[in-house]
Amino acid sequence: MNNAKLPIDKTDNYTSEIAQARRTFVTEKTGVDFQHLAQYSFEPSVLKGNIENFAGVAQVPIGFAGPLKVLGEYAQGDFYVPLATTEGTLVASYNRGMKLCREAGGITTTVMDDAMQRAPLFVFKNARYSKAFGEWVTAHFNELKTKAEETTSVGKLIDIEQYTVGKLHWLRFNYSTGDAAGQNMVTKATHRACHWVFDQNIEGLEHFTMAANMDTDKKHSHLNTLQTRGKRVVAEITLPNELLQGIMHVSSEALFKQRQYSNAGSMLSNAVSNGSHFANGITAIFIATGQDVANVAESSAGIVYVELKPNGDYYFSVTIPSLIVATYGGGTGLPTQRECLQMMDCYGAGKVNKLAEIVAATVLCGELSLGAAIVANEWVSSHEQYGRNR
Amino acid sequence: MNNAKLPIDKTDNYTSEIAQARRTFVTEKTGVDFQHLAQYSFEPSVLKGNIENFAGVAQVPIGFAGPLKVLGEYAQGDFYVPLATTEGTLVASYNRGMKLCREAGGITTTVMDDAMQRAPLFVFKNARYSKAFGEWVTAHFNELKTKAEETTSVGKLIDIEQYTVGKLHWLRFNYSTGDAAGQNMVTKATHRACHWVFDQNIEGLEHFTMAANMDTDKKHSHLNTLQTRGKRVVAEITLPNELLQGIMHVSSEALFKQRQYSNAGSMLSNAVSNGSHFANGITAIFIATGQDVANVAESSAGIVYVELKPNGDYYFSVTIPSLIVATYGGGTGLPTQRECLQMMDCYGAGKVNKLAEIVAATVLCGELSLGAAIVANEWVSSHEQYGRNR
Amino acid sequence: MNNAKLPIDKTDNYTSEIAQARRTFVTEKTGVDFQHLAQYSFEPSVLKGNIENFAGVAQVPIGFAGPLKVLGEYAQGDFYVPLATTEGTLVASYNRGMKLCREAGGITTTVMDDAMQRAPLFVFKNARYSKAFGEWVTAHFNELKTKAEETTSVGKLIDIEQYTVGKLHWLRFNYSTGDAAGQNMVTKATHRACHWVFDQNIEGLEHFTMAANMDTDKKHSHLNTLQTRGKRVVAEITLPNELLQGIMHVSSEALFKQRQYSNAGSMLSNAVSNGSHFANGITAIFIATGQDVANVAESSAGIVYVELKPNGDYYFSVTIPSLIVATYGGGTGLPTQRECLQMMDCYGAGKVNKLAEIVAATVLCGELSLGAAIVANEWVSSHEQYGRNR
Amino acid sequence: MNNAKLPIDKTDNYTSEIAQARRTFVTEKTGVDFQHLAQYSFEPSVLKGNIENFAGVAQVPIGFAGPLKVLGEYAQGDFYVPLATTEGTLVASYNRGMKLCREAGGITTTVMDDAMQRAPLFVFKNARYSKAFGEWVTAHFNELKTKAEETTSVGKLIDIEQYTVGKLHWLRFNYSTGDAAGQNMVTKATHRACHWVFDQNIEGLEHFTMAANMDTDKKHSHLNTLQTRGKRVVAEITLPNELLQGIMHVSSEALFKQRQYSNAGSMLSNAVSNGSHFANGITAIFIATGQDVANVAESSAGIVYVELKPNGDYYFSVTIPSLIVATYGGGTGLPTQRECLQMMDCYGAGKVNKLAEIVAATVLCGELSLGAAIVANEWVSSHEQYGRNR
Repeated sequence: MNNAKLPIDKTDNYTSEIAQARRTFVTEKTGVDFQHLAQYSFEPSVLKGNIENFAGVAQVPIGFAGPLKVLGEYAQGDFYVPLATTEGTLVASYNRGMKLCREAGGITTTVMDDAMQRAPLFVFKNARYSKAFGEWVTAHFNELKTKAEETTSVGKLIDIEQYTVGKLHWLRFNYSTGDAAGQNMVTKATHRACHWVFDQNIEGLEHFTMAANMDTDKKHSHLNTLQTRGKRVVAEITLPNELLQGIMHVSSEALFKQRQYSNAGSMLSNAVSNGSHFANGITAIFIATGQDVANVAESSAGIVYVELKPNGDYYFSVTIPSLIVATYGGGTGLPTQRECLQMMDCYGAGKVNKLAEIVAATVLCGELSLGAAIVANEWVSSHEQYGRNR
Repeated sequence: MNNAKLPIDKTDNYTSEIAQARRTFVTEKTGVDFQHLAQYSFEPSVLKGNIENFAGVAQVPIGFAGPLKVLGEYAQGDFYVPLATTEGTLVASYNRGMKLCREAGGITTTVMDDAMQRAPLFVFKNARYSKAFGEWVTAHFNELKTKAEETTSVGKLIDIEQYTVGKLHWLRFNYSTGDAAGQNMVTKATHRACHWVFDQNIEGLEHFTMAANMDTDKKHSHLNTLQTRGKRVVAEITLPNELLQGIMHVSSEALFKQRQYSNAGSMLSNAVSNGSHFANGITAIFIATGQDVANVAESSAGIVYVELKPNGDYYFSVTIPSLIVATYGGGTGLPTQRECLQMMDCYGAGKVNKLAEIVAATVLCGELSLGAAIVANEWVSSHEQYGRNR
Repeated sequence: MNNAKLPIDKTDNYTSEIAQARRTFVTEKTGVDFQHLAQYSFEPSVLKGNIENFAGVAQVPIGFAGPLKVLGEYAQGDFYVPLATTEGTLVASYNRGMKLCREAGGITTTVMDDAMQRAPLFVFKNARYSKAFGEWVTAHFNELKTKAEETTSVGKLIDIEQYTVGKLHWLRFNYSTGDAAGQNMVTKATHRACHWVFDQNIEGLEHFTMAANMDTDKKHSHLNTLQTRGKRVVAEITLPNELLQGIMHVSSEALFKQRQYSNAGSMLSNAVSNGSHFANGITAIFIATGQDVANVAESSAGIVYVELKPNGDYYFSVTIPSLIVATYGGGTGLPTQRECLQMMDCYGAGKVNKLAEIVAATVLCGELSLGAAIVANEWVSSHEQYGRNR
Repeated sequence: MNNAKLPIDKTDNYTSEIAQARRTFVTEKTGVDFQHLAQYSFEPSVLKGNIENFAGVAQVPIGFAGPLKVLGEYAQGDFYVPLATTEGTLVASYNRGMKLCREAGGITTTVMDDAMQRAPLFVFKNARYSKAFGEWVTAHFNELKTKAEETTSVGKLIDIEQYTVGKLHWLRFNYSTGDAAGQNMVTKATHRACHWVFDQNIEGLEHFTMAANMDTDKKHSHLNTLQTRGKRVVAEITLPNELLQGIMHVSSEALFKQRQYSNAGSMLSNAVSNGSHFANGITAIFIATGQDVANVAESSAGIVYVELKPNGDYYFSVTIPSLIVATYGGGTGLPTQRECLQMMDCYGAGKVNKLAEIVAATVLCGELSLGAAIVANEWVSSHEQYGRNR
């Protein structure tokens, strides 16, 4: 291998030429000819702020599912949902769940809470100072809020949780962030607030760091399940037994029984979700709509809660406590991503709760569909029909 | 809304015409004109088994990072890594970590274990029968193995773990699955083995289900951290203090201190990882290379373990206990995805451990880069330079 | 066996005669002659409210350890600590740790937080009503506080946390409870507040229950680690390396290294504590002083955080997030238990934080002693010296 | 305070005189006169190996509950259970549950597994050596077993689990330990086996320690829930609805509903048990019978699994995955403790599984009783009747 370097980014070089140069460079190194990577339908300049060392695109197939009938506070009506995936049966399975829920009258969705965090750590000489700092922070919330909000016209500081270990003291700043996911917005706001803290000559302060795993970004934590990161969304439906039997070929009683087993299994495995596969629908929507897909790590955790009613009806709910979505900023404005948001009328300002509700409703459909397939023993065979024989 | 339905799949209809029909249908419903979704560079027939209701593609920008110097058992040499993301600074950050590790001589990687699961549940009349069944399974492992392996030329049954709660008895079948991720392979194999069990007139057996959250597929569980799902991969490096200061502008001592705080934070938040952002690199490679991206839910968990040596050297390791990757099957053969695998010489048979090692080495680079940025207080400003102001 | 029943309690029958009758009854059934159970040194009438079906006493041996030097906010000075145990080496080991810490100048202790909970569950028709209820509760905190505090002259309602899953809505009432552990006090207060809620015609309310595992009483939960149950106490010390080597025969560097391994192990095992044996000291003090020993389940969880200073000093801290102690009520007033509290000047009103600090300081001593024994490889041999060869 | 020291132990000084000297010493320091601590009914010489610095006894009141009807493999028949506690209503509540279960025909109990651990850590130069070591251990299991078992006539090495993080490699030795709890037995055996390993010139071995939180002793870990520590015991019963209504004044349907709420709550709080109060019964028996009470930390975790049958019957089970009990060694032979074991015919050789079954059956009774009290809203009032007004 020669010593030439991969052509790197300058702030003004989002061009097809440099993308081509990068592909050529790697072709020379590896012998791989990039026939498909180069097939994008936009000017690379749109990518500024979204990627460095741009060299082409992944073409991820999208299937449409729906209509998904949502009875939300923000999402109301029938939606077609774009699902980007390479996993056979996924779209078909969600689509089947959407049909069931549509015929049952639709899915009720509720955004219960909304908060994006940054959790800086203050280290003190000992815990006594940490305790005093805690009281000081409570007393100075208004100043901290003012300082934090100086950096953003959108973000609002809601409250500051405090957590301690020994002499370590985390402040967990909770913000509402409008239609952006807001991770960067809250970083800047919190940074500003913390710099104001430094100016106050806090007694006994030894060290400071902007992050030390109490946010918790890009990884599930039980703290996120309890306290919400992004949106906390619930989707619920009550399904008549006859409908389940007609469409899914299972009884509500059989589904309920399976749910008891799944609950026991998730307790025993210590799973971050007692659901079946929240991650599938969330990931497919995230890729299609330009979300930060790595947030699947947090967003895919959740809790299924069900009830079997005396009349045989089946109440089914999913709670997603840390769903991180945006309809503005990040990858949401890129060409295909924007089209996918637009087809759900979820692009731009004032749409983020609507998108959150659609995602939660979609997740619910997938849980019902896979759950029914397992119970009806159709699961193995459906993969044989639609999926590759891997 | 009229009553027309979204054009659905038949087994013979992966064509551009029907994809167009679907887009047209949704355009009529929503008014959105799909300019970009339709810009794919392949025949839709290649998608059979990968998606239903195909309507177009998501174009996800790819940046190249590297070279990544890996000293693995399977991956040996310098690699350029395709990262599909819409999150600004991600590629630049991983690239910086790759430079550091390259100059330090490269990253040692080891695939510690390899197992894909299916965990059916057997429910008995009471726990006494469950206990007897456990002994029976141990005594009949060879027959179960024979039956399971009848369904696959690739998968091999390694062992069967047993877990119990009350009268519930899970068998967790562990398979090696060659170069496929293998979820479907192990489902079929386990299904066959279980049907053989049913024929043996097991005493006290009341109920059976193929899955009840002890696998655990598409969600992190602590069981997966302990017992491996997919590959368990370690990436390690020892970094001289001077190199850290030269390239990252931080001392090993400062990084080590930050690591102590992060460990305390992850214990307190009960995070599934004490790392910073395993999910970022994993997700970006997964999208680029046609992995099942929903497996980010499991694959992004892990443990960072470090040591500060008396001479100031910094030993840094990441352990990914449930990394689910494939170089064959699933989305790996699709056009852009295959090119991305090929540029790392990771497409097809006999390459899966190589890919696992490259992923782990990439994750390590990202941890070092972000960790250093936080310590050097460059983190906020780097987002301002590269990222959008969201 | 004949059909006679075990003589049962009346409210006026805490007498030695009925205790003897119970022993005689069981002797007739089992042939066991109770020589020692009957050897108590008090009038059974003192037990009213502490036990039913009284038949005698367990004589649990107590060893004295100390002096324990505490530099607390409440506990200041040297204390002799009564440890009730049957496990050989326990007292000797804690005693050794106390010596070390005494010579290092004493242990700084801080009660960071104080809250006892009851977490009733309100179930709604759907999550939309649950969300509205949450806002209503926030708006009516003062009324809820007034109602709750009508039932107690001691307990004060601090705040109400809210947690939701689907249509389930928990209110987690946090109280300060003076010198009592307070579980019963907060139950009555919360019960009263909830009954007031029922009178307000809350819309969509379907069901109510006083408890559904969000307290969480008599079991560890991560919620308790985050949010405090009972007292959150920190004990800290900085130990010179020479002192460690002189008394414990280990270097601070070796202890620190072992700590890194223990942290990794506790992450991997998903332990509720990264300490060695918080439970030992806590249990021994709890038995001696008439605490509710079953609260060891919650009280024994915690976090060790340490630092190795550039000069070789070793900063060591323990954080006990859910230490449930009382100096009034429960078993604290019984004869031997009261004497044990008195020897630490911890009996009665105004002493509970002092006791909490002594417990935390004791726990710290035990962690240092066992940790050093493991590192110095004295652990196996010390058990051979002091313990039975079991 | 003068400089006199607390009179310390010699191996030959378990006498009443030195115990008196210790009390006198502390009386001089604190002014507390020990009237009751001194009232023990045995020769202090019996305590050798159980405690150091002996100064007297805690007198913990014992109530008898029962008969408890057990249909175990080892415990068969009716048992009176000694419960040592100072918490009012505890004995009455367990007694009520025992009555219910007796009338329902008794409790089926099963010891599912039995294993006591020691988990030494081997640290290697890098993970590659760790991997090779893992294979070496598997290949040399027989030699390791031989070496380990040289140290004990009772303990048998069952298997060795292996767990890894980075270059850290834990071996988790699982032993059966007869009627002793066995913590010390397995420490010595494992120590011997490890010393044999050192003699084999294992390549790349850098460091060794006998313990690093993968056992996990004296603290709950999810690993223990999965893999058993001590005994894994199940207790089960099927209760007719009429009986529940007659004795507990609740319907099976109402209990089942409450169980659903409790399961959701424990998932949300991330509790180590979805039960109500396993710890209460376990602690009370542990104190009475001379168990190592600190093991309540591990032993109190567990899982409740229930079913509501179509005919209204209620299947109820408790699983205790890490119940650590002994009928030999430790405190089991002390005077009152031995009497309490004898009254259940559980003292000495060959009785440990019997005791484990009685404990599990007792736990089940307590769960049913408290669960019913919560549902029947008798909970607050029962504490008012029996308990102190704390």
